[in-house]
Amino acid sequence: MSEPSRDILEVFDNPHPDRNYRIDTVCPEFTSLCPKTGQPDFGTLTISYIPDQHCFELKSLKLYLQQFRNHGAFYERVTNDILNDLVAVTQPRWMKLTADFTPRGGIRTTVEVEHPEPALPGSDR
Amino acid sequence: MSEPSRDILEVFDNPHPDRNYRIDTVCPEFTSLCPKTGQPDFGTLTISYIPDQHCFELKSLKLYLQQFRNHGAFYERVTNDILNDLVAVTQPRWMKLTADFTPRGGIRTTVEVEHPEPALPGSDR
Amino acid sequence: MSEPSRDILEVFDNPHPDRNYRIDTVCPEFTSLCPKTGQPDFGTLTISYIPDQHCFELKSLKLYLQQFRNHGAFYERVTNDILNDLVAVTQPRWMKLTADFTPRGGIRTTVEVEHPEPALPGSDR
Amino acid sequence: MSEPSRDILEVFDNPHPDRNYRIDTVCPEFTSLCPKTGQPDFGTLTISYIPDQHCFELKSLKLYLQQFRNHGAFYERVTNDILNDLVAVTQPRWMKLTADFTPRGGIRTTVEVEHPEPALPGSDR
Amino acid sequence: MSEPSRDILEVFDNPHPDRNYRIDTVCPEFTSLCPKTGQPDFGTLTISYIPDQHCFELKSLKLYLQQFRNHGAFYERVTNDILNDLVAVTQPRWMKLTADFTPRGGIRTTVEVEHPEPALPGSDR
Amino acid sequence: MSEPSRDILEVFDNPHPDRNYRIDTVCPEFTSLCPKTGQPDFGTLTISYIPDQHCFELKSLKLYLQQFRNHGAFYERVTNDILNDLVAVTQPRWMKLTADFTPRGGIRTTVEVEHPEPALPGSDR
Amino acid sequence: MSEPSRDILEVFDNPHPDRNYRIDTVCPEFTSLCPKTGQPDFGTLTISYIPDQHCFELKSLKLYLQQFRNHGAFYERVTNDILNDLVAVTQPRWMKLTADFTPRGGIRTTVEVEHPEPALPGSDR
Amino acid sequence: MSEPSRDILEVFDNPHPDRNYRIDTVCPEFTSLCPKTGQPDFGTLTISYIPDQHCFELKSLKLYLQQFRNHGAFYERVTNDILNDLVAVTQPRWMKLTADFTPRGGIRTTVEVEHPEPALPGSDR
Amino acid sequence: MSEPSRDILEVFDNPHPDRNYRIDTVCPEFTSLCPKTGQPDFGTLTISYIPDQHCFELKSLKLYLQQFRNHGAFYERVTNDILNDLVAVTQPRWMKLTADFTPRGGIRTTVEVEHPEPALPGSDR
Amino acid sequence: MSEPSRDILEVFDNPHPDRNYRIDTVCPEFTSLCPKTGQPDFGTLTISYIPDQHCFELKSLKLYLQQFRNHGAFYERVTNDILNDLVAVTQPRWMKLTADFTPRGGIRTTVEVEHPEPALPGSDR
Repeated sequence: MSEPSRDILEVFDNPHPDRNYRIDTVCPEFTSLCPKTGQPDFGTLTISYIPDQHCFELKSLKLYLQQFRNHGAFYERVTNDILNDLVAVTQPRWMKLTADFTPRGGIRTTVEVEHPEPALPGSDR
Repeated sequence: MSEPSRDILEVFDNPHPDRNYRIDTVCPEFTSLCPKTGQPDFGTLTISYIPDQHCFELKSLKLYLQQFRNHGAFYERVTNDILNDLVAVTQPRWMKLTADFTPRGGIRTTVEVEHPEPALPGSDR
Repeated sequence: MSEPSRDILEVFDNPHPDRNYRIDTVCPEFTSLCPKTGQPDFGTLTISYIPDQHCFELKSLKLYLQQFRNHGAFYERVTNDILNDLVAVTQPRWMKLTADFTPRGGIRTTVEVEHPEPALPGSDR
Repeated sequence: MSEPSRDILEVFDNPHPDRNYRIDTVCPEFTSLCPKTGQPDFGTLTISYIPDQHCFELKSLKLYLQQFRNHGAFYERVTNDILNDLVAVTQPRWMKLTADFTPRGGIRTTVEVEHPEPALPGSDR
Repeated sequence: MSEPSRDILEVFDNPHPDRNYRIDTVCPEFTSLCPKTGQPDFGTLTISYIPDQHCFELKSLKLYLQQFRNHGAFYERVTNDILNDLVAVTQPRWMKLTADFTPRGGIRTTVEVEHPEPALPGSDR
Repeated sequence: MSEPSRDILEVFDNPHPDRNYRIDTVCPEFTSLCPKTGQPDFGTLTISYIPDQHCFELKSLKLYLQQFRNHGAFYERVTNDILNDLVAVTQPRWMKLTADFTPRGGIRTTVEVEHPEPALPGSDR
Repeated sequence: MSEPSRDILEVFDNPHPDRNYRIDTVCPEFTSLCPKTGQPDFGTLTISYIPDQHCFELKSLKLYLQQFRNHGAFYERVTNDILNDLVAVTQPRWMKLTADFTPRGGIRTTVEVEHPEPALPGSDR
Repeated sequence: MSEPSRDILEVFDNPHPDRNYRIDTVCPEFTSLCPKTGQPDFGTLTISYIPDQHCFELKSLKLYLQQFRNHGAFYERVTNDILNDLVAVTQPRWMKLTADFTPRGGIRTTVEVEHPEPALPGSDR
Repeated sequence: MSEPSRDILEVFDNPHPDRNYRIDTVCPEFTSLCPKTGQPDFGTLTISYIPDQHCFELKSLKLYLQQFRNHGAFYERVTNDILNDLVAVTQPRWMKLTADFTPRGGIRTTVEVEHPEPALPGSDR
Repeated sequence: MSEPSRDILEVFDNPHPDRNYRIDTVCPEFTSLCPKTGQPDFGTLTISYIPDQHCFELKSLKLYLQQFRNHGAFYERVTNDILNDLVAVTQPRWMKLTADFTPRGGIRTTVEVEHPEPALPGSDR
């Protein structure tokens, strides 16, 4: 199976580029494979962004994410890679991706990635 | 069917223009049509504002929103357009519109528009 | 039926005026009449304040609010008026009143009034 | 019945005084008597603090709070008094006590006291 | 039974050290013994961090935490000690550990430890 | 103020009298006065029935229930009386009225009345 | 606009007609118009059935229900009519339709229709 | 302190003794003392009954239950004893008492007593 | 990709075949493909059974269900087929499978299959 | 480590053996080891029973269950064995044990055992 590619993502013109506004998209049906065990992982992706010239099209987003269905992916890497793909394609003013994975071995993990990266806690003191 | 028009919106005099205070109005029964497929969309609109000289009248708001029932509307555009209509008619000191649409294809989207527009995250550092 | 009057409100001495501290009082059984239709309205009032020299007494607050039971009152005006009454009687260092009304015509409204009034969003940038 | 006394509270040495860290303790079984009517009151106390040299011991805290079981206490005063006792005994870097009482006459009240006292809302503008 | 040791913790290279991003890991199955009574304690540990060069590996984290199963541990000390172990092994840019223990004697306690330590409330005014 | 009267209740013809089917109507805004203290009571009425020839009309139900707003009424009696009125006017095949009142003195009460009356528990053994 | 018609409903062969089994389908996006006021109504339809030779196809169900979008419909009648349509087309062994409408004037109504009709409560004693 | 006595319970005439109907009363503020340790216990009592000639009066119920505040009481015995007292005073057609106690040592207990006693599970086969 | 096969399912000896007892297993991570569109479907399977001589082994159940990941499956058929496989392998005294699928086009569906099949509603009158 | 033994369970005389009544005890802190992997399992045990001459004492129940902390136990067997121990010691008129284990590999299991054993579903037709 080929690698997931951002080429499948389509955009449309932001209808109100004159204004900073926020779009939140929740995708509760993300699934990929654990590269170590081959077992499926499941998670909910939440994409929040302030578009600049382009918004991503929802059906193409769904197809883009479905590419990971039979693809091996570690939590931390795949979250960063998906954010990078979405940033590359939409060039947003701001974007945050939160990936909330279901429990494994009694432990559950969430990865939250933001562009541009946020300051460290306490760094604004 | 004619285009939705802001002319249907009625206002009344703010009874306390001497004070900044906030009104939140939640409309869980918004529905419009998808311009691509003609299929109905459903969402909850939440309008928050600090009135200046005028407040919108609730019954006229309901009738205004019902104009979209058989009207084609993309999520991002219609949210911005409704905010613009409400701002034009009430001239508020501040207003935010949050449109929370029901899932399609396993994905749900919220659009949040604010007037005047907020700063970008991190821009106050 | 006579107008609601703040004279019914009783206060007691703040036992710790040496310290800024906060009291939140939730009254889920507020009811008044719609001045246009005569139909009853229902809501939950939440009063938060930092007392100065006086605190309001809870039983007198209940009787004060019961005065609105058969009284015509628009949401925005009555919320401001009740805050003004409570401020006049207790002279607090800070007070906020949130009135959360039940749905009418599928739409529900909350009014939030604060003394002294808060800055507009974004005004501290 | 004798007055509640802070002498019953025991402390132990903070195992990590080199670091600001926070302890939250929730006591949902607080009960006292209304001084006016003699009727029992019930509430949940939440104590949050950043210890300095001492932490309070949980069993002694339970016994300290049980002293109020047959003791007359107004909401505002008893919340301030308990904070004062806990501050006197543990000398914390920061402490907040929130007392959330069950409804009486359809009205419920929460009192929140903090040491050192917080600034008034808006005072940091 | 030997002392819990941080040596069991394994790390892997942060796949995106070029960016500040956040990982939250929730472990609801932590259990240790009360040093005074020998009775078991139960809690949920939530570890949040911004990795620098290393992320902790989840299976080794599980084994590390299982070392406490038959180990005596006071709430405040064990929370600080686990944070210290995780900081020593991963050298994160920022880390917070929240330990939420189940009720004992009707009282429940949460300990929240952060590295580097946060400022005291009010200290940034 | 005159006594509440069932004369205000209007009915319409059951559109499907050929079939046993069930209608549940929930009225969360019922309020009356305590005959002893004159204080307002609040409750949620749930009316379930299998209509025979007539259904009650919802707007007239609302007006009927509003008659109790300034009327003294004990919980047990008023629940039975309202059921009797609704039965008299609609002559249903079966009807149940559940009245769920808000707490007074820390105690809350629900009264459930059914027509025809149900058997006692265990009587069908 | 033409009347809603059951002709739009499509069926497929029950893959396991040899066994009684149950299908529950929840449609939270039903909307019609009030015949008296012309105002939109909203509700959630839940269809439960034990198929015989045919199951209804979900996309055709969606289109069938969308026919009511601009159609005047009383709660009690439309619920019975939809059940009759679904029974006529699928000829199920058993079917129940529950229609749960959103509040109007502070009152909400649910209509539950079953085929074949259930016995009256108590009739099996 | 004297023993709790049923003499404090007052009744009033059932306004509709011609009909079997049900009253549920929830008392979330029950507290007594553990006879072994002297420590306070807390629980929620739910009393359900079908009255015959008498209903219990709510204020006297509250005072009756407050007698247990400083009284030693085992869970199983006190639940049976309270049911016996309520049955003796009201002579109901049916009554059930459910006592739901808060956790002790990580374990929580509910006792449910019914008059007349229910059959054993399976005994109606 | 080959067809899903029941051969992958493993059983172990029921440790207490002398007694009817119930096992419920919830699998929230079931996913298959829609045979018409090729799009992924997601659902939660709940298997309840009373074992006879054999219980299914959980890890083999997981692997069995993962066979459907890239397999086309209609809701009604796949639910019946999985029940048949589980019945064939474990030969239970009783088994029920409930498959609760996520919404598509605003509509969600649950299929409930039982072995031996239940009676039709009302058939026991 | 020795085998768990029922000898640790203590009983006390049922204070009301003249009446069938029910006791529910919930133990959310059960933990044992998986015999295959040695990994800890966690679950909530709910014990419901109608006592005959004896009730189990709660502290001894806690100590009895703690015996499983470092003991290997399969879900199905351990649930049956604990029921057998409790039945042997208390000789109840009826008892049910429900063991609700936390998820492993995305799958969670509940085992429900009853004494005397219930009839098979449908067997009472």
